[in-house]
Amino acid sequence: MNRPYNFSAGPAAMPEEVLAEAAAEMLDWHGSGMGVMEMSHRGKEFGQIAQEAEVDLRELLAVPAHFKLLFMQGGGLAENAIVPLNLSRGEAVDFVVSGSWSQKSAQEAARYCTVREAANTQASGFTTLVDPASWQLSNKPAYVHICSNETINGVEYQSLPDLKALGCEAPLVVDFSSHVASRPVDWSRVGLAFGGAQKNLGPAGLTLVVVREDLLDRALPICPSAFCYKTVAENNSMFNTPPTYAIYIAGLVFKWLKRQGGIAAMEARNIAKAELLYQAIDRSSLYTNRVDPSCRSRMNVPFYLRDESLNEAFLAGAKERGLLQLKGHKSVGGMRASIYNALPLEGVQALVAYLRDFEAQHG
Amino acid sequence: MNRPYNFSAGPAAMPEEVLAEAAAEMLDWHGSGMGVMEMSHRGKEFGQIAQEAEVDLRELLAVPAHFKLLFMQGGGLAENAIVPLNLSRGEAVDFVVSGSWSQKSAQEAARYCTVREAANTQASGFTTLVDPASWQLSNKPAYVHICSNETINGVEYQSLPDLKALGCEAPLVVDFSSHVASRPVDWSRVGLAFGGAQKNLGPAGLTLVVVREDLLDRALPICPSAFCYKTVAENNSMFNTPPTYAIYIAGLVFKWLKRQGGIAAMEARNIAKAELLYQAIDRSSLYTNRVDPSCRSRMNVPFYLRDESLNEAFLAGAKERGLLQLKGHKSVGGMRASIYNALPLEGVQALVAYLRDFEAQHG
Repeated sequence: MNRPYNFSAGPAAMPEEVLAEAAAEMLDWHGSGMGVMEMSHRGKEFGQIAQEAEVDLRELLAVPAHFKLLFMQGGGLAENAIVPLNLSRGEAVDFVVSGSWSQKSAQEAARYCTVREAANTQASGFTTLVDPASWQLSNKPAYVHICSNETINGVEYQSLPDLKALGCEAPLVVDFSSHVASRPVDWSRVGLAFGGAQKNLGPAGLTLVVVREDLLDRALPICPSAFCYKTVAENNSMFNTPPTYAIYIAGLVFKWLKRQGGIAAMEARNIAKAELLYQAIDRSSLYTNRVDPSCRSRMNVPFYLRDESLNEAFLAGAKERGLLQLKGHKSVGGMRASIYNALPLEGVQALVAYLRDFEAQHG
Repeated sequence: MNRPYNFSAGPAAMPEEVLAEAAAEMLDWHGSGMGVMEMSHRGKEFGQIAQEAEVDLRELLAVPAHFKLLFMQGGGLAENAIVPLNLSRGEAVDFVVSGSWSQKSAQEAARYCTVREAANTQASGFTTLVDPASWQLSNKPAYVHICSNETINGVEYQSLPDLKALGCEAPLVVDFSSHVASRPVDWSRVGLAFGGAQKNLGPAGLTLVVVREDLLDRALPICPSAFCYKTVAENNSMFNTPPTYAIYIAGLVFKWLKRQGGIAAMEARNIAKAELLYQAIDRSSLYTNRVDPSCRSRMNVPFYLRDESLNEAFLAGAKERGLLQLKGHKSVGGMRASIYNALPLEGVQALVAYLRDFEAQHG
């Protein structure tokens, strides 16, 4: 029997192969006599799991050697404080506010530094992005923060801004939580990138931070040790007990991604999936997506029924067809299909077929 | 085939029934068509899982209604900062330093407040505890911190100190990471208790905080929102995406604990297990435990071979018998048997038999 298709924005669908593998070795990992959950994080078995996860992820994302790759806890919301605690030096920081997530990040950072908005698209309802050439950057900000894919608003940068080309030497901080591993990253433009794992990488409770080595020396004295990037880096992400099982599952996802052909292959599939879904929405009279086509997200597709009185019927019918978790975020309403790496093309095809049938029935 | 016995100090042995249950429903939780890892934390399925976990844990630990029960991230080491960020008001705080963990807690707290030592047993090699009547408490400290079971040193409070009886009105903060759920807690003596889950409650990456409601209003402005107890409490531990799978596994452990007869039954077993092991050590000529018998831990039993050249042979022989992860913490050397709730009496019996046989062979 096929499993339903799960369009959750995160925690989100996992590759079925990964779940099956995890279930099979739950009580005994590779003949060790222990489940992964039961292993000391200092032992050789878990050491191997953690190291393979790091090596595989570094290879998948093509992370250069002068970046540290950290496995942390707390998710994107915690990083909204942890990043300025580590990088702001208490100075001015520039934020590009392009949706709910970058807005939250800016609010939290204001506890630790002076926050300036280089751009803000709230007036458009967060349906577009400002060309970086038009950003109002400060003179020497400590860093410039963007959210490269806004999970709630469905807005995605199709390429990362080149701050140097804009005459800005500050490091770029990228919240890539909801599209990490869905497309390549141009690391030459990045100072630090962070993301919660629970969209494209693995279970909730694991946070990925990729940080350029020269940025490790800036932490404020009030930064908790467990969240100080330098301390975490010096201890290979084992200063405190890491979320071992979540790292193990993420490691299985990384091996699955490699078997799929890596990030380039995933990107090609993600483009195909997104095109199929946006075309179906744009061609219909019932559904609408409000985001500027130039910056529509390949991962998170919010859409509305023009007749919102049909919302409940739409969701109930979807569930009957095995199309789960399509309800939009409470702050924006409507619907949202999150079509991460683990959601196959067949899932989008099934959704498109349902969109068509539901419209024929109610349109 | 029997699984080996796992004496890891944490992450530690899990109940086999819990692992089997988790494996069986990895791809489909209760007919929902989703694994627990794939569920939105805002959906009704995970909502039910989280709520049952809280209700069961509150019942097991007999937590009074005027305490909030929070599921957080970061473990004990992060709480070493999070507690003073929430409770110290930047004022003086009293620490009772009874081992490696309370020592670390005091060092980290000094980032945020004035740390005073009410007692320190380092001179004894952390093998004893000071009677609370002899503590040097400050005049009106913001709180008094103890670690009620020192995982590395094997020292445990057999009852919590009664600060009021000592004329101190400050709240008692208890790091109970490594013996939570192994014995009852006298909440009338507690202001806040915290613990990483990875010893007695579930997987690493989940942190339990139990905090008296009247203490929720003290956070410093620099406290990150994701770690502000008041914010976490107001959002039922879902201000940020919680470690959903770890909460689910902990919930299965709570149901297992209830099936075992609850905390009173676990305490009786833990007493029996600890007595058996300490007696075997004390009666031998080869092994020694240096902790004052009045404060020996029921959970973590460090011991040394009088002839330390036998250490490697001891560990190799143990592994051959299916007795895993007995090596002591690197900071103190020797051996350590952690005998948490999930380690059955049969495991301690097997260890005692091995101690005897190894001594007969090498003594």
